[in-house]
Amino acid sequence: MNRLLNGMRVVEGSAFVAVPLAGMTLAQMGAEVIRFDRIEGGLDAGRWPLAPSGRSLFWAGLNKGKKSIAVDMRSPEGKELVTRIITAPGKDAGMFLTNLRVRGWMDYETLSQYRRDLIMVTLTGDRHGRPQVDYTVNPALGIPEMTGPEGHDAPVASALPAWDLIAGNMVVSALLAAERHRLREGEGQDVEIALKDVAAATIGHLGMIGDALVNQTERGKSGNALYGAYGQDFECACGRRVMVIGLTGRQWAGLVKVTGTGDAMERLAKRTGRDLEDEGVRWELRHEITEILRPWFAARRVEEFAEQFEARGLTWSIFRSVKQAVREDPDLSEANPMFSMLDQPGLGRFPVPGYPGEFSAKPRIKPAPAPELGQHTEEILGDVARLTDTEIAQLFDKGVVQSPNYTARSAA
Amino acid sequence: MNRLLNGMRVVEGSAFVAVPLAGMTLAQMGAEVIRFDRIEGGLDAGRWPLAPSGRSLFWAGLNKGKKSIAVDMRSPEGKELVTRIITAPGKDAGMFLTNLRVRGWMDYETLSQYRRDLIMVTLTGDRHGRPQVDYTVNPALGIPEMTGPEGHDAPVASALPAWDLIAGNMVVSALLAAERHRLREGEGQDVEIALKDVAAATIGHLGMIGDALVNQTERGKSGNALYGAYGQDFECACGRRVMVIGLTGRQWAGLVKVTGTGDAMERLAKRTGRDLEDEGVRWELRHEITEILRPWFAARRVEEFAEQFEARGLTWSIFRSVKQAVREDPDLSEANPMFSMLDQPGLGRFPVPGYPGEFSAKPRIKPAPAPELGQHTEEILGDVARLTDTEIAQLFDKGVVQSPNYTARSAA
Repeated sequence: MNRLLNGMRVVEGSAFVAVPLAGMTLAQMGAEVIRFDRIEGGLDAGRWPLAPSGRSLFWAGLNKGKKSIAVDMRSPEGKELVTRIITAPGKDAGMFLTNLRVRGWMDYETLSQYRRDLIMVTLTGDRHGRPQVDYTVNPALGIPEMTGPEGHDAPVASALPAWDLIAGNMVVSALLAAERHRLREGEGQDVEIALKDVAAATIGHLGMIGDALVNQTERGKSGNALYGAYGQDFECACGRRVMVIGLTGRQWAGLVKVTGTGDAMERLAKRTGRDLEDEGVRWELRHEITEILRPWFAARRVEEFAEQFEARGLTWSIFRSVKQAVREDPDLSEANPMFSMLDQPGLGRFPVPGYPGEFSAKPRIKPAPAPELGQHTEEILGDVARLTDTEIAQLFDKGVVQSPNYTARSAA
Repeated sequence: MNRLLNGMRVVEGSAFVAVPLAGMTLAQMGAEVIRFDRIEGGLDAGRWPLAPSGRSLFWAGLNKGKKSIAVDMRSPEGKELVTRIITAPGKDAGMFLTNLRVRGWMDYETLSQYRRDLIMVTLTGDRHGRPQVDYTVNPALGIPEMTGPEGHDAPVASALPAWDLIAGNMVVSALLAAERHRLREGEGQDVEIALKDVAAATIGHLGMIGDALVNQTERGKSGNALYGAYGQDFECACGRRVMVIGLTGRQWAGLVKVTGTGDAMERLAKRTGRDLEDEGVRWELRHEITEILRPWFAARRVEEFAEQFEARGLTWSIFRSVKQAVREDPDLSEANPMFSMLDQPGLGRFPVPGYPGEFSAKPRIKPAPAPELGQHTEEILGDVARLTDTEIAQLFDKGVVQSPNYTARSAA
């Protein structure tokens, strides 16, 4: 976390991964991010993984450093309140992120009547307005067909919701680009991004659409091999698995040298009449190369070559589960200044990540935990919606808003 | 593509996915992005997939809309030239993106002597300065252990370089956030982001670190199931595979209703004493739920239920390869305004994606193709480095720079 965006206020009405991640990223760069939710919590309030208390580790992770207000948005007062919060004055306010797509009172046309220079970024499913999630976009665009062990006959989807994560980061840059425009021209705008379009554009950027259309390629599964050059996983004598990379000429030369396989590679080149200096040839001959390297790894424990690999600057890593990684890898602990130990109510104590980047003008500060649902309800009603204490008390009494300390029921 | 960032100039010294994607994204939002490369082309000049001509579809995809200058950076004149281009004056210039990490003449300390308010964003491998690529970061942090068919005993890495793509988008927002700070305070800065930290932070944000430490969970493989709620792939009577989602209460109710499995689900709930309205219970009972739904899909061709699924607003999709997707899905064609057919020299004619988002204040324009290596060398030397025609001619003659039309060799 840092204070780079201090003073900026962003309102977020969201659920699940992408838009919560966008708001959280802005909060970790110092913006004041207000997330509003239904009285009963958002659609993602109970998303797995959960802590033993039943509280969502997922929700806590994606809502760090935000302010939370809980509002009954079925009531006219609740709608009015959310409108006031989104469109509240302030040169560095009037920015709204959402993936909820509520037509009518919460759409751009309506909200921008209350603040002409509103910036609203909406993440939709697909461009037709159909619901889509990472788990549907990914199969539709072909990545699972290319993923998995060679010869495996079914598509394999990654456990990482990559499209959501990419889209969430794109929501951040879209908002900052739109705010840059507003700072210069005074003009707000309506920004729409479809999750499926993010995925479709990305596979295009990577050359996959051209490959399918120009080459008529049906790119199949190649296990854990690095596509288009050399990179492969090997099982070592200790049972651990490593990934080694020969993507660039330097990496390839280093790998051949350290494993002492130069002669065997030369024989392979001679036998096939191919030049292994060409990355594409390394890809086409990957199985033969792997057969040459496999015995080297199979005969050695990771400890036997790790230091040498580091000293030679090889690009490689050890396969770990998350549980192994948090136990073994200091980069996932407080030894990494990105992480801080946080005690989080109902969750426990573990290292929590801040913003990955380091800005020289704004030093890292400790990441803030996620709020309780409605933790900042009173504060937001006073400071942002500019209501009087009496008005705030009435809203609590009527059950239009809620906070952990004060609910209509507890007051009754 | 659009003109939202018109007037902004960003210089990029990069290779592979993340930083080229960042520069390309800025170019597709209207910034002038100058990529400099070695005379012989960057490390990624021949990255697969290739077109039949041997030209890289990958490179063309990730460098769309940029200007290209080819410079011999081993020569003192080449170093001086790149320095001049990076630090050229202009309120909206003086921004540099890189993943090359050249110490000395191209580091922040040196470059910022020529322009105090320089913004430089460097993407590194890991925070220790070790080389890392998507293919090494991913195994180290556990995603391949959770990916793959249930019971499969080896890690499975996705074919999508997700961490690179996330990091690239983060480079964009880091640059925009740093420029926002500079616009207000006049202060430039050095921004460093490590690819491995992007991945480590992200698994933290998703709750995986908490899950591993608080719950001591070793999250295993669950095939293509949606983690933490219900979502599953099914093979249909036509041989095609679909993904159906029951993440939210609405999605789950819709799926049960359309498939007419309400009674069977009720019996399952009664037999197990569990409440299927709870998303976590749907996850825990996913195998039993899948057994109930499987015959419904196995007995039907996709065409038989597709319309009904759409009409009921179910969240679902069909598994396709990229090749099938470009043939069948209009969202990957010019029917989607994000795509335009482009004739690209040496590559062919196919739909090329612009920026995924739509900004109401700046309409979409056709995406620009990638440059030839060195295509803008003369223009950049004149307009940005502010050299005279004589100076430019001397640099070409000495082989310090090159362009497709004029090389030292062709002049000799």
